[in-house]
Amino acid sequence: VSTLDELDTPFLAVDIDIVRRNVAAMAAMVTARGQVLRPHAKTHKCPEIARLQLAAGATGLTVATVSEAEIFAAAGCTDIFIAYPIWAGGRRGSRLRALAEQVSLRIGIDSVESAEALARAIDGDHVEVVVEIDSGHHRSGVAPDLAAGVATAAMRAGLEVVGVFTFPGHSYGPGNGRPAAQDEASAISDASAALYDVGIAPTVRSGGSTPSARFADGAAVITEVRPGVYVFNDAQQLELGTCDWSDLALCALATVVSRRPSTIVVDAGSKVLGADQASWATGGGRLPDYPDARVVAMSEHHATITLPPDIDTPELGSRVRVIPNHVCTAVNLADYLIITSAGDVVDRWAVSARGANT
Amino acid sequence: VSTLDELDTPFLAVDIDIVRRNVAAMAAMVTARGQVLRPHAKTHKCPEIARLQLAAGATGLTVATVSEAEIFAAAGCTDIFIAYPIWAGGRRGSRLRALAEQVSLRIGIDSVESAEALARAIDGDHVEVVVEIDSGHHRSGVAPDLAAGVATAAMRAGLEVVGVFTFPGHSYGPGNGRPAAQDEASAISDASAALYDVGIAPTVRSGGSTPSARFADGAAVITEVRPGVYVFNDAQQLELGTCDWSDLALCALATVVSRRPSTIVVDAGSKVLGADQASWATGGGRLPDYPDARVVAMSEHHATITLPPDIDTPELGSRVRVIPNHVCTAVNLADYLIITSAGDVVDRWAVSARGANT
Repeated sequence: VSTLDELDTPFLAVDIDIVRRNVAAMAAMVTARGQVLRPHAKTHKCPEIARLQLAAGATGLTVATVSEAEIFAAAGCTDIFIAYPIWAGGRRGSRLRALAEQVSLRIGIDSVESAEALARAIDGDHVEVVVEIDSGHHRSGVAPDLAAGVATAAMRAGLEVVGVFTFPGHSYGPGNGRPAAQDEASAISDASAALYDVGIAPTVRSGGSTPSARFADGAAVITEVRPGVYVFNDAQQLELGTCDWSDLALCALATVVSRRPSTIVVDAGSKVLGADQASWATGGGRLPDYPDARVVAMSEHHATITLPPDIDTPELGSRVRVIPNHVCTAVNLADYLIITSAGDVVDRWAVSARGANT
Repeated sequence: VSTLDELDTPFLAVDIDIVRRNVAAMAAMVTARGQVLRPHAKTHKCPEIARLQLAAGATGLTVATVSEAEIFAAAGCTDIFIAYPIWAGGRRGSRLRALAEQVSLRIGIDSVESAEALARAIDGDHVEVVVEIDSGHHRSGVAPDLAAGVATAAMRAGLEVVGVFTFPGHSYGPGNGRPAAQDEASAISDASAALYDVGIAPTVRSGGSTPSARFADGAAVITEVRPGVYVFNDAQQLELGTCDWSDLALCALATVVSRRPSTIVVDAGSKVLGADQASWATGGGRLPDYPDARVVAMSEHHATITLPPDIDTPELGSRVRVIPNHVCTAVNLADYLIITSAGDVVDRWAVSARGANT
């Protein structure tokens, strides 16, 4: 194992002590409310971190793709929810059937057609099915009053419908965490009532995102939450007020390669940090050692950073830490995470599900 | 080899006939002007495509990182320019020295300090050095009138200075190709004159980007151009008018997973297409089979696409082709490119330099 200084930049470094604290805090909050925690593994894509989450009280994992499910199943995870409106055609259908024989598998649907395609693919094997509802993000998912129709069709096709799920993605905006959590609770409540009306008990009522998780406290309505980003946090969560500087567990180490007064260019660009930048973000990432600095431009291998005039501009060849805006896409660009504790490198963990999109 | 239909989506497919045409057209244009073509390999990161470019008349390759240089050197490329203001400290210094002993190597610098660090690292081995100048993009590079100072310091440190280079990145904007090429020519001309004044002959005067390449026609000023994207093109080049629909050689194949009137959600999101979206882009990508459709929202595994009301909304489970906004970052997310000719899969090429950031 090298020291941090011996590793050529850019690379992603993880403070594993902060990860453990974030993992424990979310588990404590969610279980204290009487809910199930099923963290989204798309953030870390790393079996070692999944094991930390499961050891801390998570019931199972959430993933976004069949290939992520395959990788975490191979790593020993036995309870997996693919929180995505899966189209179970072609080889993907056979892959789902193989997974269903290996782990406890739950799959999302949001249409009669996707339910029927899934039933054909699964062909009587056991999976749990949940109907995706749109709670205000307007991506996939049906309106709450249409959930019963999809659930009924799924049941008739031979699937076991166990409930509903939603992703309140509109929580990603300043001040949006609480109102998005309220939308989520309403949508889940309405869809659940509609399922009861057609004789289906929605025992799984799954919601959650990192910005809304703290507000999703009605266990009578929401039985399960699925945050992902909380394990590392990122510049978006910092700027949304979901976390503090001390909760940021992952950064890119970058070298200053070009310099002029109050401006540096570092070697971590969009191929390391990701290009995600919401309209409300103050820049392309944040620097924990220079809170008033801003990433004002980014290209593939350059981030241009401005600093306040009263701050000494970092020297050429020195290193700075940059927090990505969106940690999920930054991790998906890396083959390895450098694991540190108290500033020392203690391990190197593979991002095993990097690029697992199918 | 599978057929396209047998491969689970999402994946990147390349029409190799269009690639060959794009490669030949750029080589013909540049060599007819009496210039050297040194294409940027960061776009494709693929040795097979580099070999097509070299066979079509490219003199050598351009790369952005030492690790890209190492991968293309290992693949047999013998002439490599790292068009980046390299900081040659630590292990990166030893890696550069090893490369210099293996291939004809050219390296960028933009400061006295980076020149001195490079001279220490190289320790008398042979590399060519070029000074990066800022022609208006305001990223790295020095102002043209400061190039002579950096060049002189590099020479005194024992390096062989052969010229100057610039990246006119401000060509990425509607109507900016021609004026950015003019800025590039002025900056290179001014910096070259300054080098002559201190007794250094700038025999290499390197410029170019895909949007500005067609306007960089003054061989007396610019001896070499370094376009990258032209090999595939992308939605940005289409919307800038640099290419036509028929020049688009790479797309993501995606499945419709959710559907409502005039809107579909497909399974290629920012982890496949990249999140790049310039302020002037009309959306998150383009659909060659639906020119009036727009990618109005993107998350990691969802692209939300709206279609005009008079167009039949594609069915659930059907496939659509999506052109990424910025092909360089999309390719960097893939392990393989599926190579097609006349609609048939003919090969699968590894993106060998994917993630080669150090």
